[in-house]
Amino acid sequence: MAKEITSRTENYSQWYNDLVIKAGLADNSAVRGCMIIKPYGYAIWEKMQSIFDKMFKDTGHSNAYFPLLIPKSFFSKEASHVEGFAKECAVVTHYRLKNDPNGKGIIVDETAKLEEELIIRPTSETIIWNTYKGWIQSYRDLPLLINQWANVVRWEMRTRLFLRTAEFLWQEGHTAHATKEEAIEETYKMINVYANFVENYMALPVIKGVKTANERFAGAIDTFCIEALMQDGKALQSGTSHFLGQNFAKAFDVKFANKEGKLDYVWATSWGVSTRLMGALVMAHSDDNGLVLPPALAPIQVVFVPIYNKPEQLALIAETVLPLKKQLESKGLSVQFDDRDTCKPGFKFAEHELKGIPVRIAIGPRDIENKTLEVARRDTLEKQTIAMETAVDYVVDLLDKMQQSIYQKALNYRKEHTFTADSYEEFKQILDDKGGFILAHWDGTAETEELIKDETKATIRCIPFENKQEPGKCIRTGKPSIQRVMFARAY
Amino acid sequence: MAKEITSRTENYSQWYNDLVIKAGLADNSAVRGCMIIKPYGYAIWEKMQSIFDKMFKDTGHSNAYFPLLIPKSFFSKEASHVEGFAKECAVVTHYRLKNDPNGKGIIVDETAKLEEELIIRPTSETIIWNTYKGWIQSYRDLPLLINQWANVVRWEMRTRLFLRTAEFLWQEGHTAHATKEEAIEETYKMINVYANFVENYMALPVIKGVKTANERFAGAIDTFCIEALMQDGKALQSGTSHFLGQNFAKAFDVKFANKEGKLDYVWATSWGVSTRLMGALVMAHSDDNGLVLPPALAPIQVVFVPIYNKPEQLALIAETVLPLKKQLESKGLSVQFDDRDTCKPGFKFAEHELKGIPVRIAIGPRDIENKTLEVARRDTLEKQTIAMETAVDYVVDLLDKMQQSIYQKALNYRKEHTFTADSYEEFKQILDDKGGFILAHWDGTAETEELIKDETKATIRCIPFENKQEPGKCIRTGKPSIQRVMFARAY
Repeated sequence: MAKEITSRTENYSQWYNDLVIKAGLADNSAVRGCMIIKPYGYAIWEKMQSIFDKMFKDTGHSNAYFPLLIPKSFFSKEASHVEGFAKECAVVTHYRLKNDPNGKGIIVDETAKLEEELIIRPTSETIIWNTYKGWIQSYRDLPLLINQWANVVRWEMRTRLFLRTAEFLWQEGHTAHATKEEAIEETYKMINVYANFVENYMALPVIKGVKTANERFAGAIDTFCIEALMQDGKALQSGTSHFLGQNFAKAFDVKFANKEGKLDYVWATSWGVSTRLMGALVMAHSDDNGLVLPPALAPIQVVFVPIYNKPEQLALIAETVLPLKKQLESKGLSVQFDDRDTCKPGFKFAEHELKGIPVRIAIGPRDIENKTLEVARRDTLEKQTIAMETAVDYVVDLLDKMQQSIYQKALNYRKEHTFTADSYEEFKQILDDKGGFILAHWDGTAETEELIKDETKATIRCIPFENKQEPGKCIRTGKPSIQRVMFARAY
Repeated sequence: MAKEITSRTENYSQWYNDLVIKAGLADNSAVRGCMIIKPYGYAIWEKMQSIFDKMFKDTGHSNAYFPLLIPKSFFSKEASHVEGFAKECAVVTHYRLKNDPNGKGIIVDETAKLEEELIIRPTSETIIWNTYKGWIQSYRDLPLLINQWANVVRWEMRTRLFLRTAEFLWQEGHTAHATKEEAIEETYKMINVYANFVENYMALPVIKGVKTANERFAGAIDTFCIEALMQDGKALQSGTSHFLGQNFAKAFDVKFANKEGKLDYVWATSWGVSTRLMGALVMAHSDDNGLVLPPALAPIQVVFVPIYNKPEQLALIAETVLPLKKQLESKGLSVQFDDRDTCKPGFKFAEHELKGIPVRIAIGPRDIENKTLEVARRDTLEKQTIAMETAVDYVVDLLDKMQQSIYQKALNYRKEHTFTADSYEEFKQILDDKGGFILAHWDGTAETEELIKDETKATIRCIPFENKQEPGKCIRTGKPSIQRVMFARAY
């Protein structure tokens, strides 16, 4: 089973695609660029959602829901937003179908043409700020801290499961504040929430930083991001938090009366993560045998596989496994007893490795005699025979260790793949030989950034928050620079 | 605040609309027929979702996600489905906008026309069965028990918040089975899950039954439903579960090899409930002061209101309230301490009544002295002074009693509004004078059903599962009938 996966060295991109499909995470659909998230993939997304949702609520946010369809004219209201978003999107022009009078199935009813076209939301700033106008009158209505879980559509030309799809699932936070300072604080708060999630649950270290003007969200004053490094040395932007200033408030005329009764425009932020994180999760940790899931996000954390020849042996094994399973479940773990009689243990092992189940416990008649269990951990594939009576503590401890160890491995990889380059030659050499993050001087202009991108496919991922100020010369133009910025080729 | 709500006797329909908007459940949007679900409304929907989700998982279902957009041709594949669904829907014809060369904002790029139009899903049978074709080969792949939480769009001409909106949120279950018997069993199982939810959490009694051919889901062999009665005597269909036979398997060519290796078409069901249930919840129990929410679904179940003049008094009250709040929370309750200093207790009382918070506890300096609390229940508006030391048990018990009592009230109302009619005159008289469910004889033909609907606006809500077989004469045609069926005017 696992054998059908292309290896990473052979073709990293194909390996990723094979893995996503064969591990049952997602499928391509009959609709161009739209994916189907299969039950196993969706179970991981649900875990992500529920952890995020609690984090958002713990930081004072409430969920709400806004329309899928946005009037076309809304996009024109914020000048830079329209450039970024009103391009490749799905346009609804009609609201009725009818039977073809020539008997050839159904056709669009041309009499049911919309006066104004509706756009399937690529992001919801416009419809939400149009709504906030009616909700905000005074400082008492602020802050407004709202999150939406939703689907969005961006008509991408080249799509890849989870990483870039025409339709994807995400959450988008949209907050409104009385002061600039409070909005900026919120922008930082949420990028920290994202970093906390990606590092502690996805076991993936990130660099927090600010985007250059080129890479900023359309309509934002500043975009903060978290950037993670994949196993092929390419970066993946894993979440963004935008300080929108008063841009959307001005575009949609949202003012509030402050305590002194003076009217001012409201300050805004927006922030989002998407099913793209599923792609990051797969790419960051998995191997040629299949998924490697951090225990915190694995839908099934422990699987028992009985090794037996006769039904009586299975019955005996079940007598031992079921109470153990219950004990583990009482610790909050999700445990499966794989007693299918339609396939052999070897097949099951391969399948559980493919699906990335963190801990596999094999148990046969001899184990019952000896009161032992064979415990295999997915990340290192190491096996250990342990005393049955220590099993619960051992497994709880092991899962915790694995979570740390998967993170540490990714962190080590990133350390080994973070470079400084002092010349353009060196820069290009590192990109081609090793990939990874490259800290290099840049003259601060959009033109040079574009030039480097065109010539090397590397982009400035961010200017890290805790960046050292260090004078130098731009690797491309030789002009003076005040700090190194972080480049990489990226997904 | 609450005063601004139209009373039920004055205008029931306006009362409902006022309530939904003023209690902060939902808002109309700038997009025709699409609503905005506000945080308080969404919090109730989230509670519904999480209870349902657990029920679905407990009955063996997994969640997955399928594309929002469906190729137009898919709708033509199942003959009766196309009649029901490929009519009023949102049609995507283009995938790009561009700047108007005449400088008038943005316009549709006519060069970006889709070869085949895409329809925003009004329901997902077609795209899902097209996918199942690739997932099902043998009996080992069955049953396939999948649920999807999603938004759907049906281009309704006359919309009402929650009850009928162009876009709404729902869940749709889509299952595939090896035998007819198993699929029918699933159809019953899920209508029972729905009935259990509506009765035990929404505190709303329902009649379970089967729809007539006229009212059946387009593409189903049989549609089961639950029907509830609103306070104005109109029925509201609250959930449906469809036995689809092999219709969709045949339309999308989904066959499986049984244990003997013989190929057969797969058997199907689908079932759904939507944000329409929010409408039912509001209509069923609320009064002229605002929402009445069953405690099981109230986002905030208990609110403490301090009665004080001086800040020292508030501090003293907080010292008593906070530990009590903690104790109640440890019982799993959601509790709020409304210590806003921007409004008076009377204003808060009205607001909490409007929002349907089940239990309100007022506490002032004298209560602290006497070690008492004043507890008001939202459903009956009764107040009771209780000893502080009994508070936790009292409140837990009271919430439980209220849940039962709200159900009982709705059940009594339904009993008082369930009639039998033996002549068409009597039938029409009941409809106009009292409304409610009317059990009456019907000759079993679609023509008579249509005639009665045209003449009285009453429809056959269902033939109850446990219907007595009782010969009689059709109220409209006088032709023989084998049983009474359940009529009502409906939402």
